[in-house]
Amino acid sequence: MAAVESRDNQVVAAAPLLAELADIVGAAHVLSDPDLVAGYVTDWTGQWRGAAAAVVRPGDADEVAAVLAACHRAGWPVVPQGGNTGLVGGSIPMEGEILLSTTRLDQVETVDPVGRTIAAGAGVTVARAQAAARAHGLDFGVDLASRESATLGGIVATNAGGIRVVKHGDTRRQVVGVEAVLADGRVLTRWKHLAKDNVGYDLPGLLTGSEGTLAVITRVLMRLVVPATETQVALVGVLDVGSALTLLDRLERAGRTLEAAELMTADGIALVRAVHGLRAPLSEDTEFVLLVEVSGGTLAEVLAEAPDLVIDAVVEPGPARRLWEYREAHTESISAESATPPLKLDISTPVGELASFLLGLDADLAALDPAPRAITFGHLGEGNMHVNLLDVPDDRREELTDLVLARVAAHGGSISAEHGVGRAKAQWIGLSRTEIDIDVMRSVRAALDPAKLLNPAILPS
Amino acid sequence: MAAVESRDNQVVAAAPLLAELADIVGAAHVLSDPDLVAGYVTDWTGQWRGAAAAVVRPGDADEVAAVLAACHRAGWPVVPQGGNTGLVGGSIPMEGEILLSTTRLDQVETVDPVGRTIAAGAGVTVARAQAAARAHGLDFGVDLASRESATLGGIVATNAGGIRVVKHGDTRRQVVGVEAVLADGRVLTRWKHLAKDNVGYDLPGLLTGSEGTLAVITRVLMRLVVPATETQVALVGVLDVGSALTLLDRLERAGRTLEAAELMTADGIALVRAVHGLRAPLSEDTEFVLLVEVSGGTLAEVLAEAPDLVIDAVVEPGPARRLWEYREAHTESISAESATPPLKLDISTPVGELASFLLGLDADLAALDPAPRAITFGHLGEGNMHVNLLDVPDDRREELTDLVLARVAAHGGSISAEHGVGRAKAQWIGLSRTEIDIDVMRSVRAALDPAKLLNPAILPS
Repeated sequence: MAAVESRDNQVVAAAPLLAELADIVGAAHVLSDPDLVAGYVTDWTGQWRGAAAAVVRPGDADEVAAVLAACHRAGWPVVPQGGNTGLVGGSIPMEGEILLSTTRLDQVETVDPVGRTIAAGAGVTVARAQAAARAHGLDFGVDLASRESATLGGIVATNAGGIRVVKHGDTRRQVVGVEAVLADGRVLTRWKHLAKDNVGYDLPGLLTGSEGTLAVITRVLMRLVVPATETQVALVGVLDVGSALTLLDRLERAGRTLEAAELMTADGIALVRAVHGLRAPLSEDTEFVLLVEVSGGTLAEVLAEAPDLVIDAVVEPGPARRLWEYREAHTESISAESATPPLKLDISTPVGELASFLLGLDADLAALDPAPRAITFGHLGEGNMHVNLLDVPDDRREELTDLVLARVAAHGGSISAEHGVGRAKAQWIGLSRTEIDIDVMRSVRAALDPAKLLNPAILPS
Repeated sequence: MAAVESRDNQVVAAAPLLAELADIVGAAHVLSDPDLVAGYVTDWTGQWRGAAAAVVRPGDADEVAAVLAACHRAGWPVVPQGGNTGLVGGSIPMEGEILLSTTRLDQVETVDPVGRTIAAGAGVTVARAQAAARAHGLDFGVDLASRESATLGGIVATNAGGIRVVKHGDTRRQVVGVEAVLADGRVLTRWKHLAKDNVGYDLPGLLTGSEGTLAVITRVLMRLVVPATETQVALVGVLDVGSALTLLDRLERAGRTLEAAELMTADGIALVRAVHGLRAPLSEDTEFVLLVEVSGGTLAEVLAEAPDLVIDAVVEPGPARRLWEYREAHTESISAESATPPLKLDISTPVGELASFLLGLDADLAALDPAPRAITFGHLGEGNMHVNLLDVPDDRREELTDLVLARVAAHGGSISAEHGVGRAKAQWIGLSRTEIDIDVMRSVRAALDPAKLLNPAILPS
């Protein structure tokens, strides 16, 4: 990248490249007006802001390839962006990269109901993929709150999680094929409608979760799933995390398939009730509330046989939106309640460590003065908790992140269970990965993008 | 590698390295007596033979690291080998590499029934992992005929498939963590007991299926699964492949979980009946016989509602070994019947293409003079068929492989659904992968092993 010292100098330096890019994608799709660019260079949490030399919006894979080839010749770095719904600042440029938006790659190409796949452009949203699948009596294996904006390219690039991982696995597990453009403009195509294809390295899996550092994903081929015929949903009041985990184990051993398993706390339930004016879900208040959705049999029977675990429970046939609302209202309620953008930490621990992690974290936070308010909830089946700290002033964010992630590391956990590293967690990567591991990642990156033009500020640098 | 022109010269050239290796692992674990080496340098199909400077059997990961560091300093290539049950010659040295056997890394370290993982040395067999899991009321997600010999390191290195992929996914899906030694002796450790850990590139997934070309796997951490409570097994006579696929779809849409779904042909059933003296499984002979195992409900009801698909069926509660025998006896019966080692082609097509692929292949083979005898069976759920050609003389193997794999490619299939590329499929890799894809694989390999010392004859070279 041509060193840029000021916005004005940068505009001058970028001008020849932007002219070339306008020739490729059309002038209407090279945005440099600060008003138009603003929405792309700020993430939706409001936490991450940057600046881009321009936003470029190619309309097909050939244009993406030409854009990347041009940037490669110019030595100009590029940050790919999908729906801009990431939570770690991974698609926000720092200070003058080209922002390559994939949102115009928005064609749902085919749904194959026999092979159970969907082929689509990287800019297709999760909600559109879900709708396309459902039109064939199938479903898409990933669901998450940002479904209306999050793109397939984005969830693949970040290996997104969500509420169905316990049933269907993560996004990587859904990827059958990809088309992606390398930093130098070459197009990598691994595109076979095959459930098994064991020829060489798993490059689609490698690109999945690479956060825009290895290639720009332009098309995806993803598996579809058969939806459960009948589901049941329960909110279950339990004394502790161990009881919730034991209950999940008993359900599975009784032949039930877990469709979702979400843990909430008394504090979280109280908050969403206050913000949304909801009634108490259970007749007794309990320290933890488990939302569990199953198929393959009834819930009531197994719950009735577990008086040692279940303090109180309510069961409804799926989709049971009334019960799900307590869980789904968490994110919005936390944002509404917090005077500053909530500090969101997306961690996992071994499931057997989760109870002691939460107790330890409570003690760590209580020892602070002032003690921050924490609301924790998440995907119990995978030991993945979203720790949200409210009302955190800017000057305490790093200190508090340090504290939570050190506690995570002490329990053998991950600094990011599903959101990715991005800019938010970059400085803590050493808590989750060894030096040799980071070094191997660097080598792989250098093999695919020797000039380090793709999302240069992200991942091991 | 020091160029070697004859066995004698090679022994002389290798002597200093072998002395160093004997210091590391003990002289008893460096085998160079041809009688002792023979079992390692011939694969069990009898199709692949080679020669090794020596077989080295390290006893722990530190010894593996020291062995690889020594070979790296000497510039001597290394072929890793697990249980030597591969079907594509991928762990058979060519002409004088060091064969590194992982079979002494045979400790089952821990089974965690809460987190549902097993931690074990790479040399632990699949059967031992299964037994360890079952002692906790759990199971291992991979099962295959070679379970008593195949090692965990081997199934990870080859991303093995087997009969449970339709339920649990392939081996890659079971890998939670790995410890692996790089070509230069550095130890890469990704070892977290986590169901979700989204920090950086999926290096365990990259090593899975890399066929010993990127690192030597020394320990694995793999997920365990909850076994189905009650299963039912049916043999179903059907008219054609489409009927079998439609039946699987109806079973899934009726809420049944597929535990296995195997397709056989009338020719295959006739063969195993003749070799094993089995009765006809069904009262009517049909062109295809589907073996299906389900959980989550009965089979009889769904079969009864499908008179358009089911010509005849027999149902038994699982494990139903009597019904499974028709499927499991295939491999052995084919070997017994064929005058030469059967030519085994392990292919997949899109499931919607499978019927036309099989018809096309029949026509291709019938047009030859003499027409080879073919027995085809396999994992219907994934479109993965094992095409076995019997009585093929050595001088026709390449021509027939060409013919079958060209037919596979014409239907958008894979030249290897689960066995891997190895030596057997190396020359056909271009039928399954693009030039750019192969080039990216080469770059990744060069990043991890610049001197190309690990399994140099395998994968893109």
